[in-house]
Amino acid sequence: MEAYQSGRHFLQIPGPSNLPERIARAISRSTIDHRGPEFVQLTHSLLERLGTIFATENPIIVYPSSARGAWEAALVNTLSAGEHVLFCDSGHFATLWSNVANNLGLEVERLTGDWRLGVDPSAVEARLSEDREGRIKAVALVHNETSTGVVNEIAAIRQAIDNAKHGALFMVDVVSSVGSMPYLHDEWQVDVTVAGSQKGLMLPPGLGFTAISSKALAATQTAQLPRSYWDWNAVLSFNERGLFPYTPATNLLFGLDEALTMLFEEGLESVFSRHKRLASAARAAVRGWDLTLYCLNQAAYSPTLTGVLMPDGHDADAFRRTVLDRFNMSLGTGLGQVKGQLFRIGHLGDLNELMLAGTLSGVEMGLQLCDIPHRPGGITKALDYLVRH
Amino acid sequence: MEAYQSGRHFLQIPGPSNLPERIARAISRSTIDHRGPEFVQLTHSLLERLGTIFATENPIIVYPSSARGAWEAALVNTLSAGEHVLFCDSGHFATLWSNVANNLGLEVERLTGDWRLGVDPSAVEARLSEDREGRIKAVALVHNETSTGVVNEIAAIRQAIDNAKHGALFMVDVVSSVGSMPYLHDEWQVDVTVAGSQKGLMLPPGLGFTAISSKALAATQTAQLPRSYWDWNAVLSFNERGLFPYTPATNLLFGLDEALTMLFEEGLESVFSRHKRLASAARAAVRGWDLTLYCLNQAAYSPTLTGVLMPDGHDADAFRRTVLDRFNMSLGTGLGQVKGQLFRIGHLGDLNELMLAGTLSGVEMGLQLCDIPHRPGGITKALDYLVRH
Amino acid sequence: MEAYQSGRHFLQIPGPSNLPERIARAISRSTIDHRGPEFVQLTHSLLERLGTIFATENPIIVYPSSARGAWEAALVNTLSAGEHVLFCDSGHFATLWSNVANNLGLEVERLTGDWRLGVDPSAVEARLSEDREGRIKAVALVHNETSTGVVNEIAAIRQAIDNAKHGALFMVDVVSSVGSMPYLHDEWQVDVTVAGSQKGLMLPPGLGFTAISSKALAATQTAQLPRSYWDWNAVLSFNERGLFPYTPATNLLFGLDEALTMLFEEGLESVFSRHKRLASAARAAVRGWDLTLYCLNQAAYSPTLTGVLMPDGHDADAFRRTVLDRFNMSLGTGLGQVKGQLFRIGHLGDLNELMLAGTLSGVEMGLQLCDIPHRPGGITKALDYLVRH
Amino acid sequence: MEAYQSGRHFLQIPGPSNLPERIARAISRSTIDHRGPEFVQLTHSLLERLGTIFATENPIIVYPSSARGAWEAALVNTLSAGEHVLFCDSGHFATLWSNVANNLGLEVERLTGDWRLGVDPSAVEARLSEDREGRIKAVALVHNETSTGVVNEIAAIRQAIDNAKHGALFMVDVVSSVGSMPYLHDEWQVDVTVAGSQKGLMLPPGLGFTAISSKALAATQTAQLPRSYWDWNAVLSFNERGLFPYTPATNLLFGLDEALTMLFEEGLESVFSRHKRLASAARAAVRGWDLTLYCLNQAAYSPTLTGVLMPDGHDADAFRRTVLDRFNMSLGTGLGQVKGQLFRIGHLGDLNELMLAGTLSGVEMGLQLCDIPHRPGGITKALDYLVRH
Repeated sequence: MEAYQSGRHFLQIPGPSNLPERIARAISRSTIDHRGPEFVQLTHSLLERLGTIFATENPIIVYPSSARGAWEAALVNTLSAGEHVLFCDSGHFATLWSNVANNLGLEVERLTGDWRLGVDPSAVEARLSEDREGRIKAVALVHNETSTGVVNEIAAIRQAIDNAKHGALFMVDVVSSVGSMPYLHDEWQVDVTVAGSQKGLMLPPGLGFTAISSKALAATQTAQLPRSYWDWNAVLSFNERGLFPYTPATNLLFGLDEALTMLFEEGLESVFSRHKRLASAARAAVRGWDLTLYCLNQAAYSPTLTGVLMPDGHDADAFRRTVLDRFNMSLGTGLGQVKGQLFRIGHLGDLNELMLAGTLSGVEMGLQLCDIPHRPGGITKALDYLVRH
Repeated sequence: MEAYQSGRHFLQIPGPSNLPERIARAISRSTIDHRGPEFVQLTHSLLERLGTIFATENPIIVYPSSARGAWEAALVNTLSAGEHVLFCDSGHFATLWSNVANNLGLEVERLTGDWRLGVDPSAVEARLSEDREGRIKAVALVHNETSTGVVNEIAAIRQAIDNAKHGALFMVDVVSSVGSMPYLHDEWQVDVTVAGSQKGLMLPPGLGFTAISSKALAATQTAQLPRSYWDWNAVLSFNERGLFPYTPATNLLFGLDEALTMLFEEGLESVFSRHKRLASAARAAVRGWDLTLYCLNQAAYSPTLTGVLMPDGHDADAFRRTVLDRFNMSLGTGLGQVKGQLFRIGHLGDLNELMLAGTLSGVEMGLQLCDIPHRPGGITKALDYLVRH
Repeated sequence: MEAYQSGRHFLQIPGPSNLPERIARAISRSTIDHRGPEFVQLTHSLLERLGTIFATENPIIVYPSSARGAWEAALVNTLSAGEHVLFCDSGHFATLWSNVANNLGLEVERLTGDWRLGVDPSAVEARLSEDREGRIKAVALVHNETSTGVVNEIAAIRQAIDNAKHGALFMVDVVSSVGSMPYLHDEWQVDVTVAGSQKGLMLPPGLGFTAISSKALAATQTAQLPRSYWDWNAVLSFNERGLFPYTPATNLLFGLDEALTMLFEEGLESVFSRHKRLASAARAAVRGWDLTLYCLNQAAYSPTLTGVLMPDGHDADAFRRTVLDRFNMSLGTGLGQVKGQLFRIGHLGDLNELMLAGTLSGVEMGLQLCDIPHRPGGITKALDYLVRH
Repeated sequence: MEAYQSGRHFLQIPGPSNLPERIARAISRSTIDHRGPEFVQLTHSLLERLGTIFATENPIIVYPSSARGAWEAALVNTLSAGEHVLFCDSGHFATLWSNVANNLGLEVERLTGDWRLGVDPSAVEARLSEDREGRIKAVALVHNETSTGVVNEIAAIRQAIDNAKHGALFMVDVVSSVGSMPYLHDEWQVDVTVAGSQKGLMLPPGLGFTAISSKALAATQTAQLPRSYWDWNAVLSFNERGLFPYTPATNLLFGLDEALTMLFEEGLESVFSRHKRLASAARAAVRGWDLTLYCLNQAAYSPTLTGVLMPDGHDADAFRRTVLDRFNMSLGTGLGQVKGQLFRIGHLGDLNELMLAGTLSGVEMGLQLCDIPHRPGGITKALDYLVRH
């Protein structure tokens, strides 16, 4: 039995992000008939506005699923068993996505690199250039690695593919980036963009998204992987009439409606610069504590989360437990190869300076309580940054 | 632009059912860390109590998906491409499920019968007896046909399979029955039970369920259909620790928690008898109007919805539109082969006598407004029934 | 311990009315600083729009109080101890208001009449004409008697006062009329209009209102009754700056904001005709049952509630208990001199045809269960009325 | 038009306090019949549990009103026009309460003292000792001065009254103390305790409370001030049956029900020590900034708010505006004689360490942005305190 914890929980994992009360209220609306006229209007309005979020005029699919389902959708709609996919291995979520591909009977190749630097476009170009016979059918990577806080430069990787004159489909996971930092599905000629609801879109988990290029859509004609639930063409055909081929997650769609309203009220540019500024403040705190940022590439710092390495001999998860028990705050765990060594501070979604300051204060107190070697006062570095910028 | 409609919407489709305000509030709770201790407790508590709902001691899987996803899960976890599934064709949803199987590359055989009578156990027995070489790997059917309001007798079909001494897996869709009428996964030796959140469980759509027998679980060892999102073993292994292999639909799980609390507060037996009683009252009204019940088999009347046939020359959907526009009530459309001929009255979930009376009043006024031949006063037959029982 | 009751409660007392979910959500917003700029905007916006509801360009005061407090406010701001107030005795609430006056040390005169007919303007005129020395300082009455469902004609009584050339202040309680039927504070030259939040304004209880004429405001200069909480001048002076002299009931004001939005979305004329139409349907049912309407004056039928007399020897409250226990519906009790003889059906606020039909169905079933002599089928008379109008 | 502000507002005025989401949900429940059996149960349960909060076995009255109304209730139920009340002048709210008394026609005497030290019990004793003829009928003071953050020692003042062998009624305002720090209505022999909902009770504003001694109740027999709405005897007589003499603020009572549940879940002792600890941390920050605490008496530091003096020549309200505009946080203004010189940090209700840290961070950044002379790093002093205690 746990002790009563007063006050608001600080949900500072890199998603799900703190649920804004406007969205909490929106999802509590009475469910409506998913075949009625009000629902049809809702669908059309959502799909149109989602286009702005993904910067695309191409179709977007919304699934009643977690983002993991959208990963699967990207693959089963475009590929056939045994086909070769190049996964740019930038962190745990890139690995997990490649596991999905593997489970589905695809041939997975992992282009390894340094997780702390992000994917190297020239390595992608080199690998694709080697592939003269075009065995690689798709190149997949994660825009913003949720497990580490390293951002990959999608435009540069697009360029790498073009430089290699390679025809592979380009698939990008934007789960923890979309709605929090610039992302241009059309301009960067991404073929399949994969997202979820519970990060920058500020919703609870339960919706998956894929944005699709014409090339990806054409690939459905030849792709042989069995599919039904994830089948794009079925959804698109229903979506034209404002419907879905099966009962959609109506109440989460109410939340999405409100989330889009909020994002446009604030303005996407303001949303992006707010994330960037808060992320800088978080890193100022980490540097102030004399702890080590996981990300070694300044150009790749994530605006939505910061991965922090623990000093040797200190367990990140024990630290996280203390912070949870004592300060009612959830921080992100280290995943995969960095388990125990890293913790993650989520600073995305509906966040502001004081919520971040509370978050960083909780980290600072946790460091002190757990006797983790650090320089006190990192919080003041963050505040300084925020005042000056 | 539609006119303002005052008062509560009557969502009398056979699911999603009217969202109870307790559940609306539950799903508006702040999202929590899906890897934290509070979530772990929630998972264990949900899974344990779901066992009572499905009457099983075997595992239950909860997906962030619509029920359609759970159909797919039932198939991909247990079967291999080209394997033969016998679908007992009892209505539109049975057809849709078989389409899923078809999409996934299974060999579908439809055991046709009279939709208005329900599946004939002896036909099942006869067909399985013919299948001496055991080509049929699974027998699938819908417990309560949501498209028509006809209930199939699962125990009798179980008996038919046993009589035929056939080893096929037994798969049952209980989407619109579970939580509203007795259903016994273990006792009836069902191998895969498929359900959704938005009917008797009173939640918004967005959760899919499968209850699994040991035999079904064993089938995962040999089943070759590609699977990742729907993979039972992955979920079960995470569930043991109170976790999920991917971000679950946390806020809908909060709603599920409250829904289970409500069901047990009322008592499952009371819930079932309430549904039965309200359904009888609805049929009394239909008979009072001198309209025709779609279901011709008295033993197969559905406790959760009533399908009503329109007199010849009258369009059920025009009628439904009038009811929606004039009385702020959604009725169910006819699906598939009964499109336009049938409308459905949903009377499931968190319902009581007066909500039903309002519903039937709306139907009666709609009949009058649309000049549909009928005997007035059906509503009073329903009230009589309710007073006497 | 009471049995679990499924489904929505039907709150069919004549206020509080059924809480619309939009308002439920609005009052659940986070409380804001009642001295901050957002609050100032809210105050100005509310007061301006309330003017439309009361049809006045004069000030309106909103109290954190029940409507009973607003009764008191009307008196203490305008009168002095021992002054004479003529209460037109039209029902229990008129009596209660006169009791308030009595408690406060005013001299109360009750102009009795027939509760079932409503206040007779000529009796008012006659009484005021007698009062040559102007001892009567105020004439007070209830617009729509919530205890009986009889409407008094305010314009005619205004005319009666004018005919008598009497200078008394004119005070009108519109608790169960405002927002549900036409009311014209300025045009009818009412000096103090008293209202509450929980009826036609669709809010929970907790706000009281007074609309004030210039004459009433001038009376504050000479009125000697002690006052502080209810003091108009203090509130008006703060309201000018968008503030209140003490902490207002902020969350109910959020609800009021939404309620006003809803009323204007529907349009006041539509709101009024909806109430009138539903009330006619309710009376059609009562006549159908061959029960007796309390109101004997056809011109005085209330659009917001219907008082129904029980046949001799039958207790209205026993009947109401049965309806509550069996059908999860609250009906209004008989108050004061009609206790046990009368029950009231509230049909006001955010209501529609099917909610009313459910309500009337509950009454019909209750009559039957309690063996109260009646003609069955009243509900169908209501439905007939609704279809034809 | 104000800029969009992302994230949660920090409502750090000394009440209303941040609305906990559990209470937000509770007040959004559907309103129920205030004369029905469910309501009766609610009333009894609330009144019983409120006794624990006020530490009394005597009756407690709950008004649909702001706390200002409860001030008035305390006076009108126990006193007669022209009677003498001694107000211990400890801050703006003490002044306001005495103004209420003055408005109501009571004779007000203000016992002045140093606001920064709190009420001096010996001064009370001296004054009462002089009053040999017993002209002073009541001694009134504020337990925790919301305008300054200075706590008066109620037990000592009780002792002072006893020492003076004076029979005056003892009236105490606990608006910003009850539920946040120990308060013992019975043990300290307070005759009337006055409270509101929106501070330590964590509700939105809209409920006023008075706890009453037998002596106070007896005083109603002789008290001549006119009263109706505030009349204790009327309420008590209805409360016995679980009812109220007029429509109560039902939805706020739902919130009160939840608030009491929360307070008892955490445990009152834990609630009190949490407030004390957070207040100490806040003062550590103030001292860290080298700013001046308004309260000069260490024994009188408030656990619920901290009043901070601005350096000469700096306007507290300009500072507050900056903090609101830039950091989405409301701080308390200086009231009355300290307008512009003082700001107040509320740290009461449903608060925790990180919410406080965010609050103090906002203050620190505001000080810097407004060029207010201070020593940076006060926030770290607060964190140090919290880690060590």
